[in-house]
Amino acid sequence: MSSLHPWTGEMAAYALGWSDTSGTPDSGGSEGKGVRQALAVLGAEAVGADGADAVPGAVAVEFVHTFSLLHDDIMDGDALRRQRPAVWKAYGTGPAVLAGDALLAQAMTTLAETPGRHAAAAVRCFCRTLNALVSGQAQDLRFEHRPWYGPGAVGPEQYRSMAEHKTGALLGCAVALGAVLGGAPDRTVTTLERAGRHLGLAFQAVDDILGIWGDPAVTGKPVHADLRRGKKTYPMLAALAGGGRAAHELAALLDPPQPLDHEAAAHVAALVEELGGRTATRDEARRHLDTARRALRDASLTRTAAQQLDGLFTYVLDRTR
Amino acid sequence: MSSLHPWTGEMAAYALGWSDTSGTPDSGGSEGKGVRQALAVLGAEAVGADGADAVPGAVAVEFVHTFSLLHDDIMDGDALRRQRPAVWKAYGTGPAVLAGDALLAQAMTTLAETPGRHAAAAVRCFCRTLNALVSGQAQDLRFEHRPWYGPGAVGPEQYRSMAEHKTGALLGCAVALGAVLGGAPDRTVTTLERAGRHLGLAFQAVDDILGIWGDPAVTGKPVHADLRRGKKTYPMLAALAGGGRAAHELAALLDPPQPLDHEAAAHVAALVEELGGRTATRDEARRHLDTARRALRDASLTRTAAQQLDGLFTYVLDRTR
Repeated sequence: MSSLHPWTGEMAAYALGWSDTSGTPDSGGSEGKGVRQALAVLGAEAVGADGADAVPGAVAVEFVHTFSLLHDDIMDGDALRRQRPAVWKAYGTGPAVLAGDALLAQAMTTLAETPGRHAAAAVRCFCRTLNALVSGQAQDLRFEHRPWYGPGAVGPEQYRSMAEHKTGALLGCAVALGAVLGGAPDRTVTTLERAGRHLGLAFQAVDDILGIWGDPAVTGKPVHADLRRGKKTYPMLAALAGGGRAAHELAALLDPPQPLDHEAAAHVAALVEELGGRTATRDEARRHLDTARRALRDASLTRTAAQQLDGLFTYVLDRTR
Repeated sequence: MSSLHPWTGEMAAYALGWSDTSGTPDSGGSEGKGVRQALAVLGAEAVGADGADAVPGAVAVEFVHTFSLLHDDIMDGDALRRQRPAVWKAYGTGPAVLAGDALLAQAMTTLAETPGRHAAAAVRCFCRTLNALVSGQAQDLRFEHRPWYGPGAVGPEQYRSMAEHKTGALLGCAVALGAVLGGAPDRTVTTLERAGRHLGLAFQAVDDILGIWGDPAVTGKPVHADLRRGKKTYPMLAALAGGGRAAHELAALLDPPQPLDHEAAAHVAALVEELGGRTATRDEARRHLDTARRALRDASLTRTAAQQLDGLFTYVLDRTR
């Protein structure tokens, strides 16, 4: 990242999990799960190209993902990210805005400067995704102002649209960029992008389950993290969507004057499970994974890469962190 | 801006001066001066193309400019922009971060989706500029933490580098994008970009003069605006760079516990003028304008557009707002 100002470079390296706030390299393993990078490389291999062709795509996707985490943490007021202070907590809000901008600029530059004749198509793919990310975050922020239940409440289908923009688009972009940079025809790119988008929706559904019922020792997140933050996630909305007295009772517990304490959160989690929110979310994840797998079969892919993609898809559903 | 979420669209329209906070169209004339759009159109005409070819460039430059104002106002804590509340004041910090991201995404998309064979070169030009903007803002933010005078003080040449990134790059980009989209050869693009960059440095120097000695009734900014905000601008740094007892006295006035009141600001303005800060800045502006004009002569441009560019250059030096 040669053209970065050293200070924004330091913040970007911190956000990426490469170093601590003093700039010292950090090998504590606080990076992400590597799903996006793997998708990009496999996207290129699946269309018969060298995985190395996808590297600018993998880099761009990782940078834009980090950009979005960084800015979203400011908007959501989330003080912790990957068990460390969020960038805005560590460096201040203004500098964190700038660090995000720098990462986004580097992401675009990486693609725009890719040698060969696929840079323009890669940039167009990237731009579609960037617009989707921003739109998904706008939807998510607006959800906060809407009631849990009754008129104006967020329904599971609206949540799905938000997740498709906020999470699905980027996983779709990762595998599509690999294919674009590998020189795949438009139809294959579109099919792979659809597979990635549904994988992203499955990924988000699993995330929502882990955010309520995940093991803190494995996820690295506080117990009942999403409940205590009052996040409107799929399990909650699915549980409430059933209606009736039990849903009404649940809704009454969800707007407490203070954040839920441990006991109240455990009670809510049990109620959501009883109302079928957990099962519905698991079904939602499985449904999207099936759609993603069907899309994979529709594309004419090289066998080994298709198998590896399938294995990655299984990991997304079965992961515990 | 069809793919924008309506809410970010409303914030973007407000930031661009197109509407008020209720979304009602606003014709109060609070938009900018139109220099960047004019540069883009003249850039295309100067290389013999139709000015209309430059429109995606003009749009992208205006959007990225508004993005940078929006995010910079958050970082600088500036509550007013063009005589209205800044976006972060009107809508909140988080939403303003998102609105800036949306504008940047739209800027990139506008160029990436430009039909014809010049989109890729335009996107590369845009990315260079975006990196420069971010780097310039990083330099500017870091200046705040440095002393006015003595060891570690910001010198006029460091200020020039910051201004070249923060202001020069975008004016260079505007005229270069026009030329790129008009199909000009690389050498002409580079020369026009240099002309625009020096025009930008002249623009910033004039801005710095107006920020201290401008007529509030004309500029629309409070009297002694930059002094009262404690901004390290060229006139201040040039005055201090002379050294000696008078500069030392000036420096002692510049770190007051409260913002300077009207009387103190008037005293500082007079002292800076006495120490040659105003003349040095006027010379700086003229020098950059001469360099810009020389670059214009070096490029082989169509006569009418070259004359119009020259007229625009003169306006930048002589403007009073």
